[in-house]
Amino acid sequence: MTSAHDPDRRRDIAHVGPIELRTPVLEESRDFFVNVMGLREVHRDDTSVYLHTWDDYQSWTVRLVRWGTAGVGRTYLRAASPEGMRRLAAGLRHTVVSDVYRLGDVVLFQDPDGHEFGLYWDVEWYTADDTDRPALKNQAAAYPGRGANLRRLDHVNYLTADVPGTAAFLGEVLGARCTEQIVKDDGSPQAVWYNLGNKTYDLVYTEDWTGSRGRLHHIAFATDTREEILRAADVCLDAGVHIETGPHKHAIQQTFFLYVWEPGGNRIELCNAGARLILAPDWRTISWTREERAKGQAWGLKTIDTFHTHGTPVVPPAGS
Amino acid sequence: MTSAHDPDRRRDIAHVGPIELRTPVLEESRDFFVNVMGLREVHRDDTSVYLHTWDDYQSWTVRLVRWGTAGVGRTYLRAASPEGMRRLAAGLRHTVVSDVYRLGDVVLFQDPDGHEFGLYWDVEWYTADDTDRPALKNQAAAYPGRGANLRRLDHVNYLTADVPGTAAFLGEVLGARCTEQIVKDDGSPQAVWYNLGNKTYDLVYTEDWTGSRGRLHHIAFATDTREEILRAADVCLDAGVHIETGPHKHAIQQTFFLYVWEPGGNRIELCNAGARLILAPDWRTISWTREERAKGQAWGLKTIDTFHTHGTPVVPPAGS
Amino acid sequence: MTSAHDPDRRRDIAHVGPIELRTPVLEESRDFFVNVMGLREVHRDDTSVYLHTWDDYQSWTVRLVRWGTAGVGRTYLRAASPEGMRRLAAGLRHTVVSDVYRLGDVVLFQDPDGHEFGLYWDVEWYTADDTDRPALKNQAAAYPGRGANLRRLDHVNYLTADVPGTAAFLGEVLGARCTEQIVKDDGSPQAVWYNLGNKTYDLVYTEDWTGSRGRLHHIAFATDTREEILRAADVCLDAGVHIETGPHKHAIQQTFFLYVWEPGGNRIELCNAGARLILAPDWRTISWTREERAKGQAWGLKTIDTFHTHGTPVVPPAGS
Amino acid sequence: MTSAHDPDRRRDIAHVGPIELRTPVLEESRDFFVNVMGLREVHRDDTSVYLHTWDDYQSWTVRLVRWGTAGVGRTYLRAASPEGMRRLAAGLRHTVVSDVYRLGDVVLFQDPDGHEFGLYWDVEWYTADDTDRPALKNQAAAYPGRGANLRRLDHVNYLTADVPGTAAFLGEVLGARCTEQIVKDDGSPQAVWYNLGNKTYDLVYTEDWTGSRGRLHHIAFATDTREEILRAADVCLDAGVHIETGPHKHAIQQTFFLYVWEPGGNRIELCNAGARLILAPDWRTISWTREERAKGQAWGLKTIDTFHTHGTPVVPPAGS
Repeated sequence: MTSAHDPDRRRDIAHVGPIELRTPVLEESRDFFVNVMGLREVHRDDTSVYLHTWDDYQSWTVRLVRWGTAGVGRTYLRAASPEGMRRLAAGLRHTVVSDVYRLGDVVLFQDPDGHEFGLYWDVEWYTADDTDRPALKNQAAAYPGRGANLRRLDHVNYLTADVPGTAAFLGEVLGARCTEQIVKDDGSPQAVWYNLGNKTYDLVYTEDWTGSRGRLHHIAFATDTREEILRAADVCLDAGVHIETGPHKHAIQQTFFLYVWEPGGNRIELCNAGARLILAPDWRTISWTREERAKGQAWGLKTIDTFHTHGTPVVPPAGS
Repeated sequence: MTSAHDPDRRRDIAHVGPIELRTPVLEESRDFFVNVMGLREVHRDDTSVYLHTWDDYQSWTVRLVRWGTAGVGRTYLRAASPEGMRRLAAGLRHTVVSDVYRLGDVVLFQDPDGHEFGLYWDVEWYTADDTDRPALKNQAAAYPGRGANLRRLDHVNYLTADVPGTAAFLGEVLGARCTEQIVKDDGSPQAVWYNLGNKTYDLVYTEDWTGSRGRLHHIAFATDTREEILRAADVCLDAGVHIETGPHKHAIQQTFFLYVWEPGGNRIELCNAGARLILAPDWRTISWTREERAKGQAWGLKTIDTFHTHGTPVVPPAGS
Repeated sequence: MTSAHDPDRRRDIAHVGPIELRTPVLEESRDFFVNVMGLREVHRDDTSVYLHTWDDYQSWTVRLVRWGTAGVGRTYLRAASPEGMRRLAAGLRHTVVSDVYRLGDVVLFQDPDGHEFGLYWDVEWYTADDTDRPALKNQAAAYPGRGANLRRLDHVNYLTADVPGTAAFLGEVLGARCTEQIVKDDGSPQAVWYNLGNKTYDLVYTEDWTGSRGRLHHIAFATDTREEILRAADVCLDAGVHIETGPHKHAIQQTFFLYVWEPGGNRIELCNAGARLILAPDWRTISWTREERAKGQAWGLKTIDTFHTHGTPVVPPAGS
Repeated sequence: MTSAHDPDRRRDIAHVGPIELRTPVLEESRDFFVNVMGLREVHRDDTSVYLHTWDDYQSWTVRLVRWGTAGVGRTYLRAASPEGMRRLAAGLRHTVVSDVYRLGDVVLFQDPDGHEFGLYWDVEWYTADDTDRPALKNQAAAYPGRGANLRRLDHVNYLTADVPGTAAFLGEVLGARCTEQIVKDDGSPQAVWYNLGNKTYDLVYTEDWTGSRGRLHHIAFATDTREEILRAADVCLDAGVHIETGPHKHAIQQTFFLYVWEPGGNRIELCNAGARLILAPDWRTISWTREERAKGQAWGLKTIDTFHTHGTPVVPPAGS
């Protein structure tokens, strides 16, 4: 991963999202996202509820799916162009479906760990109605003024049994670029952060300590400011939401963060990068060693234990 | 007003509020305060609705009263002690009533301009219920996470036909202290800011350009941060609320402000003083001249014309 | 302490500060306060350096004193009036000195634990020069735009071998009011927060786990916003300052905090209360039990161990 | 410009900057950028001073050039790859120079209005020294903690005698994409905002009301938060810097802004976009009409007159 990227390699994926999140308590999860996080319910069917964040130009941002366990379903990736979609599909073992709500043809494929992805180009843009029409026409929907006011999906952090293999897939097949990584004492990667455009990262993979496959560490939503994350902590406290850790600032990527657990058990991050962007086309992957990480987060907070023991679906640790 | 305060003079008034606000469109005003400003409806009767801000230890903060015109009704002032209430009452022409919602005996009096005040000591404290119980027991109610999230009543700015006379009443009868003032070229005060405790001001009087009596310039609510005022501007914009001026910072008192008009026509300020307090017991009144005010607000914003022409109730300018 | 305050009891102390801080490394401590915290050196003599925070109306805020160990020297308390100074002095075993820089007569006394205090009325106000003259005349000095930009001294947290005795002294002799406290399982106070005006607290006493006398837990400075505390954490990180814990929000008093150690070893808090004030003249002391404190700080951060083991001067724990 | 972009068109320019700014008062301009804006002087030669913003991965951000008048010199554009540089150069009338400080070969060309640009690939990365080494290795330099703490160059707004012609050049030759524009009553563009990556804009052209060529409206720097822009306004006020307008929020692009004039006369914007990014690869150009712009900025501030009359170099209006 640390080898130089080819800066002339085309970036054929525009961004991450929408995404499917599985929950055994659909309505409780829906209420969390709507009342506490500030999303809007825009559609529902027999097994799921579709939610929208106010700054998403697309019709929906998250599909909550009733499921036996918590976890992540499909992650959709928008191609950067129709030709980009064809180029990527040519390198992937895939099937095509066309039954996804408000998306066109979707190229389905899996990462080496078994997480399912859907690549698409055609998408219906969000149309506000009288109750959420924004005053400024360069904005998808009115600012909700409710709870944490999540702005948009920011990134997904997956657990994987094979970090090096997944990283190779991200770089060589998907054309993503590794901006930062954690390396073990033997030099192999333990966690990798990949970006698709100027955001500092979009797709993250962390080694699954249980050896399971297809699990989720967390999905993250951007707030507009750090102050909104401080405020979200108050809102979560009053709403009885489990705050796992934060607010604090990660050393890695410098993200200002808050981690909470939604009622279904999935870890949700609220994150804000300030004005930080990766503008260098030849950005050099930053590697963090165990010794460096022992200093804790940016301002010294020790990483909380559950950060290394909780993923969804919940599984017993390997060997237990 | 500029003469030295007697620092040993007792401060027998603790704070301003609750307050009555008159509106010809009761339900529209109620919806503005609840949905856009973040207050909570806690009681209603035939002619009025009682609202609470989340950081008010008292049962209610604002009573909206159905009325023929916009304007201010009674301003209640909490005495600093029962003895303080007796001391003040002894110097006031007053009557006593005991029919005010959740207050005990109220000493009614008028300022020289005819605005009505009610001095009280006994008050019922706010009791949160299951829908707004705060997680921290040193807080009156849960942070609403709705709209502008107004924290508490901050100050009232009255219009008066006689600034010097009203100022003398504030200082000599009520024992308030003048922290800042605008002086005319002849040295007489055109507007005066008085405080009761460590806040920089609680009661403000501005010369009424129409010569009318008993009118209101604005009532102001504190938000917790400046960021919340920036956010409130977005919320007001999307909600179609008339933004009169701001956000910006006053030179006088350095208040970060936003002025909007509620549906009944009353001017409402959202204000934040940062960490500014008046701690000096012998604070010297700051006087601003016409020349100094010509520089505009702190960062140069020119004072908007309607600031000098709009008050409630609306009356034609003198001489017209 | 939980018994009702007499709201008619005069408040004869206006505020805390200036204060003397002892350090074995005078110049390093000076550089920390000036370069990292944003104070200004305004005077120095053979054994000390005088520093000013930009919002202090007085000539100086902190005197750093060269000393064998870290710790707190005299805490000065400004009387609310000359008469208030006489009333308080009448109840105190004291001596009077008149050699303090830019202060008039000072009534010296000790709290029951042996910390030294100086009560004064006469003080020279701060005069800015060409390099720190503020644009707005209601401000003591220009905003420094340097490091953490500390605004003013906020409060002092002393360690004491006898919390109940000290608390009685604060309430009965000094007329301060207990706004919050930690109570042990036996109902006795382990830490007490007292205020003098509308700030939520000014003087705090925490039980000294070593049984020593006259020690300091921390002194705290107010920043203007929470954002400045987040920024200060970045500044301290880059400057190599030891960050002990934070930024986070205390459950007690809801203070947003950052704790760092200055080069001399004294714990320094950067704090921001948002718009929180105690306006109720009959505020009821909030008591926190061990069980409640086990939940951690407001958003769940566990209290760091050194918070219970580090004070200045450093002494071995009792029994060791 | 409003015709659909070809989303498969390669983006061969990575970002804007560094830039040359001309000033008749070199040292005063240097002091403004270093002391008030928080940049760092990293190099100087006989005619110029090189300055660095703390988040710029490159060796320098701005070269201040001693000149007879204010104005903009060369704008450097970093190619997205060596191949991208060749592809772009093939479509441009250009010369190549290799004498630019810390850059490699530079392809010089002009826009249709005569502003000079330099396209480059090779660049020396910034190396911090002991006085500005950051604690986190994913950051170019320590956060300065000085004045406005400008983070990086954000965008440049040029004046042009021919908006449509320049816009065609930006889209067809440079491959930039128009995210927003102002259209006149006749449908032709009066101002255009083009982006190069996920930022909402990087290059802006506004019609020059004087008919002159090669002039500058402003260059803009990003701060990390909106709070820092509010703070910068205080810092500018105390430093005697001319604040032209703001802080406020643009309706167009929703940028939170502050405009000041540096001592040489050039207009400088401090800007913050919050978390706003353009992630849609097929973003549809937003067009603003005269009627829409008559509403003022986002929260209603009227556009200040000098915004339409001041550019650098200063020239008399056409026809005068």
